[in-house]
Amino acid sequence: MPLENTALHAAPVHELSAALADGRLTSAALVESLLERIGRYDRKLHAFVTVYADEARTAAAAADAARRAGHAVGPLHGIPVAVKDIIDIEGRVTTGGSKVWAERVSPVTATLVRRLISAGMIVLGKTHTVEFAMGSFGTNQHMGAPWNPWDLAVHRGPGGSSSGTGVAVAARLAPWGIGTDTGGSVRIPASWCGLTGLKTTIGRVSTYGVLPLSTTLDTPGPMTRCVEDAAVLYNVLQGPDSNDPLTLRHPVDDPRPKLKVGIAGLRLARMPAVERAVCEPDVLAAYDASLEALAGLGATIVDVALPRPFAEMGGLVGRIIAAEGYSFVGALVDNPAFAVDDDVRPRIQPGRNMLAKDYLVALREREALKREFASALEPVDALLTPTTATVAIPVNEIDQKGTAAGFTRAANLLDYCALAVPNGLSANGLPTSLQIVGRGYDEATVLRIGWAFEQATLWHRAMPKDLG
Amino acid sequence: MPLENTALHAAPVHELSAALADGRLTSAALVESLLERIGRYDRKLHAFVTVYADEARTAAAAADAARRAGHAVGPLHGIPVAVKDIIDIEGRVTTGGSKVWAERVSPVTATLVRRLISAGMIVLGKTHTVEFAMGSFGTNQHMGAPWNPWDLAVHRGPGGSSSGTGVAVAARLAPWGIGTDTGGSVRIPASWCGLTGLKTTIGRVSTYGVLPLSTTLDTPGPMTRCVEDAAVLYNVLQGPDSNDPLTLRHPVDDPRPKLKVGIAGLRLARMPAVERAVCEPDVLAAYDASLEALAGLGATIVDVALPRPFAEMGGLVGRIIAAEGYSFVGALVDNPAFAVDDDVRPRIQPGRNMLAKDYLVALREREALKREFASALEPVDALLTPTTATVAIPVNEIDQKGTAAGFTRAANLLDYCALAVPNGLSANGLPTSLQIVGRGYDEATVLRIGWAFEQATLWHRAMPKDLG
Repeated sequence: MPLENTALHAAPVHELSAALADGRLTSAALVESLLERIGRYDRKLHAFVTVYADEARTAAAAADAARRAGHAVGPLHGIPVAVKDIIDIEGRVTTGGSKVWAERVSPVTATLVRRLISAGMIVLGKTHTVEFAMGSFGTNQHMGAPWNPWDLAVHRGPGGSSSGTGVAVAARLAPWGIGTDTGGSVRIPASWCGLTGLKTTIGRVSTYGVLPLSTTLDTPGPMTRCVEDAAVLYNVLQGPDSNDPLTLRHPVDDPRPKLKVGIAGLRLARMPAVERAVCEPDVLAAYDASLEALAGLGATIVDVALPRPFAEMGGLVGRIIAAEGYSFVGALVDNPAFAVDDDVRPRIQPGRNMLAKDYLVALREREALKREFASALEPVDALLTPTTATVAIPVNEIDQKGTAAGFTRAANLLDYCALAVPNGLSANGLPTSLQIVGRGYDEATVLRIGWAFEQATLWHRAMPKDLG
Repeated sequence: MPLENTALHAAPVHELSAALADGRLTSAALVESLLERIGRYDRKLHAFVTVYADEARTAAAAADAARRAGHAVGPLHGIPVAVKDIIDIEGRVTTGGSKVWAERVSPVTATLVRRLISAGMIVLGKTHTVEFAMGSFGTNQHMGAPWNPWDLAVHRGPGGSSSGTGVAVAARLAPWGIGTDTGGSVRIPASWCGLTGLKTTIGRVSTYGVLPLSTTLDTPGPMTRCVEDAAVLYNVLQGPDSNDPLTLRHPVDDPRPKLKVGIAGLRLARMPAVERAVCEPDVLAAYDASLEALAGLGATIVDVALPRPFAEMGGLVGRIIAAEGYSFVGALVDNPAFAVDDDVRPRIQPGRNMLAKDYLVALREREALKREFASALEPVDALLTPTTATVAIPVNEIDQKGTAAGFTRAANLLDYCALAVPNGLSANGLPTSLQIVGRGYDEATVLRIGWAFEQATLWHRAMPKDLG
């Protein structure tokens, strides 16, 4: 029985994969159906900068032909994917969310794109981003802000910076997609769009061919409909790459997560009480219910004293990003002739006159914090926080001097990995999210916890209901 | 038959180890003999900042007692070692070569010292260094420059910055010692003092407890009488340390070098002809003879085009060291009330106003160079150069605006390892040295080449002959 369009669009990739394998679905039908849906909704939602319609159709037909000839490369053969538009594909434009780069043709193909394609995937298009990936709300003054599909009446921020991937996957314009996370840019749009988003440990996924913001903190990662898909896509993305030395420098292990082994006996840290003050009541209620659900699955919820409140780590992250970001795009940001987002300029300009010694001192403060947190979190397997303190904010109410990254930046600063999973809906029907923060290179544990949580609560099945 | 003092002092450690094991020697006798020798010569040679005479005697007696009771910890049980005075031992003073730190009591013990002690070694004392390890000639305005033992008539530079370790081992005041190398600081004193010196790959040896100059480039390493000793001491020093993240980030392998397998079939690159212009004739003659010797051992000497002359890499190294060094000691260097070496101040002060973006651009230039060199040297197993362009220079003829690190800095910049081995004597009886530069983490290959070379030429057996 062929999949109906409704089921097709809502299905996680592991179900699409099964349908393709047993002939209930073709890649051509899947791509065509998504292109039709993009045509219907994306004028309003504004998730895609570019849709590679012709190329995707051609690749899908080729994938189907290869499959019929017994040449499917694996379970992801013929699966479409959306890619954040700061990731290079040779010969195509990568805007980095900037009008300045509207005609910037990529000189290389990012290693992660090569990995997607080698796994059999089809790049559906490039998705919007905050300019230079430098912002947490998902807005973009010159390219336009994608529309959060959970509220078709009020234009709410999708979360950023991987705004377009969040909207594309949440609105079922793509079954999954790629974001990048420097201070929360995968997890915040995952939170506000009701998706699963994995911030990988630095060095797990090659950044070769990804426009850099902070070489110390940038991490590409999957944005998906469920934890199983996140684990599968993570496993495609990760691995050593001679073009990115950071990927060659971590302990060699088997990073393939074993999801379905339960979480009985794991020790999970509750966030300190001081952090509750910044959270909306609906976010807190969902968080507390999540802890209960995890305890019900056999985890032990424990209290830990953290070396410093999350809010006090923002300055350090900001300094590192400003220094490194300025070294890449400072000349653009400083030039008033270029149409750079007025909200983005002031986040990068502090890098202009920053002294090398102050930058180096910031890096050393970071190393000291890493040691302090490693000690504080030694007794636990992961730390639990809300992913964001609020649900998606209307675009016209956003305070651009503030941030939605209050809970996410720490994982970047500390070289941790972290998973955002849907954990409820607010009174006004917007998604809330649980952040599961794990040690560096311990993606397997956060995915395992996320999968158990998701299967017990099924919050990942909630979808924006006003879309057809 | 007990070892005579002359043989005792000249013996490499692997021979001392055998003598201790079979009872021809006790650690107490060895230590006493060295202390006597230090008492006789070090007033002139000025290798040691501090000699731990009482502690060394006590430790030696304890080592002998333990050995008699069947508790020798291994082949290095009871072997003395000299340690550069930028390396911390808890509760003792580390001057870093600076009068400013004449009373700076170390808060910790360096991981590498713990490893020496765990292997059974006895710390004989702390050796002189250029102030803040920031100089290649081995001079020190306020602490005094050690005297190169190859010329007792004229005060020649011992090479730096690990000047005191070089002099102590060359003058047979210690059987081996520890240096650190940021731009050549192990290899240059090894060259000028006729020793074997290994610049390790960054991350091989923990820098925890080593006063930092450049966290990007600093690498501790052994300074010894022969390659076998260098391999043994390297193997003690190297290994992961949770206190130094760089040691946790490299490929897990077995770093124990297999020395004695020959070099037939290895491809060794000759330095480009342009580099010959800066070398003294005696240095060139020794270099050319070394290539012949290696070819005679079955290696193939090949020509490669290098991306840029060595001289043109100095500026980049200088910028990185200045920025990072300034972030550590800038406040001391800038304060005219502190007695900082006038030759050292101008090497660090360019870090004061260096912008973070310019520092970051320098790091990226470095990454680009690493890629270019990796490509250029892909066809070969190692690159051969002289270690220094000249033999040891009289202290009163040194141009402090120049450098002796012209051939050594590249290995730091490129994250390579490199071995300096004696390869001749100049017409006036001063040592020349061959530098064998290998890929990062390929200490095994440079040691293997060095051992074959040494065994064929025996230049490592030459010793300063005017000392008793």
